Amino acid sequence: MTSRRGPYAKGTAKRAEILSVALEVVAEKGCHNASNREIAERVGLSQAGLMHYFGSREELYMAVLRARDERDSAAYWEPDPSFAGFLRVIENNTRVPGLVQLYVEFSAEASLGKHPAHEFFRERYEWVHQRSVESVRAAQASGEFGPHIDADLVADVLIAAADGLQQQWLLDRSIDMVARLQAMWAGMATLSRLDAEIDPVTAEATPTE
Amino acid sequence: MTSRRGPYAKGTAKRAEILSVALEVVAEKGCHNASNREIAERVGLSQAGLMHYFGSREELYMAVLRARDERDSAAYWEPDPSFAGFLRVIENNTRVPGLVQLYVEFSAEASLGKHPAHEFFRERYEWVHQRSVESVRAAQASGEFGPHIDADLVADVLIAAADGLQQQWLLDRSIDMVARLQAMWAGMATLSRLDAEIDPVTAEATPTE
Repeated sequence: MTSRRGPYAKGTAKRAEILSVALEVVAEKGCHNASNREIAERVGLSQAGLMHYFGSREELYMAVLRARDERDSAAYWEPDPSFAGFLRVIENNTRVPGLVQLYVEFSAEASLGKHPAHEFFRERYEWVHQRSVESVRAAQASGEFGPHIDADLVADVLIAAADGLQQQWLLDRSIDMVARLQAMWAGMATLSRLDAEIDPVTAEATPTE
Repeated sequence: MTSRRGPYAKGTAKRAEILSVALEVVAEKGCHNASNREIAERVGLSQAGLMHYFGSREELYMAVLRARDERDSAAYWEPDPSFAGFLRVIENNTRVPGLVQLYVEFSAEASLGKHPAHEFFRERYEWVHQRSVESVRAAQASGEFGPHIDADLVADVLIAAADGLQQQWLLDRSIDMVARLQAMWAGMATLSRLDAEIDPVTAEATPTE
C-alpha cells in the first residue's frame, strides 16, 4: 500500500483505522457474525459512512485479508523467509479462528471466475506461491532439500496442505496443523535428498527446472 | 441408502432420478448456475414439487455430494482401497469441475458450526479419513510405507493436500493434482521407510500408534 499525502491523508488514516477494527472484529467473531454495523460503530461511522471507504462487503473483506497478509508476513515470514517462517504464520492462525474462517470461505466462493474477489485470490496465490518457492530454495541452499526438486511443485503441495488443514482445523480444533506440515515437508525433503544421492550433480544447489 | 418398498417405492425412485439429474446439471454448469428450475424441468416437476423431495437447496446439495461420493467410491476406491484408488477419484474430478466447485464452496461454508451441512461434512470427513487410513495401512502391508508412521497424520495430510489442490485447480486448470499428490505421498513413504531402517522393529508391519 502506498501512502498518500495532502487531501487524501485523512481518508487514508480512516481507512487504516477501519481495517484494523475490521481485522479485530472478524478475528473475534468470525465473518458471519462480524456485522458492518458493529465495525461502523467502533470507528464512529454510520454504515453508509463505512461503505464510503469500502464500496461493498466484498471489498472490505478483500482489504481485511490483504491487511492480515501484510501484517503476518511482516511479523513472521519476512524476517525468516524459510519454511519455519511459514509455520509461524500457520501457528499464529490458531489464535485468529475468525480470520481463518473468512479466508477459507471467501477463497472458496471466489474460485468462480465471475466472483468480485476472483482476481484478488489469483494474485494472492501467485504471491504466496512465489514466497513458498523462495522457502524451498532456501532449504536447498542449506542442504535440507536436494538440488533435484521441482520447487513449484513443492510450493503447490505446501500451500494446498496448509489450506486443507485450516479447513480441517475449523471442524476440529485439536488438529495440530504445524506437526502435519512438518511431516509433509520432511517427507519431500528426504525424497529430494535421496534423489540427489541417486543422481549426483555438481555441489551447487541448482534447481532443475 | 436403504431402498424402500410399498408406498415409498415411487418416491424413492423419483428421488434417485432427481439426484442423478442434479449431479449432471451441477457437473456441467457448476453450483451457481445449476438452478432449481432447470433441475425441476428436466425431471418433469415444478420447483415446489422438487422441494417436496428435498426440503431446501442445502439438503439437495448434501444429497448430490453424498451420491457423488457413493458413485465415485464404488467405481474407484472400493475396488482398489489403496492410494491408487484415491488418485483415481481425484483424476475423475478433473472431468466434473462443477462438482468440485460445489464441494469446495459448500464444505468451506459448512465449516461454521451452525450451518445446516456442518454435521454432514464432519461425518464425511470421518469417512474419508477412515478410508485414507486404510490406504496407508495397505501401503504399510506392501512395504511401501515403513511400520513406524502415524497413519492418522498421513491421512490428514493426504486429504488436506487433495482439498487444497482442488481449490488451486479451480483457479488454474493446468495444475496436475495427481502428480503433486504422488510426490507428497512418495515423500511420506520414503520418510517412514528411513525411520524403520534407523529404528528397526520386528518384520511385521505393525503401525505404532
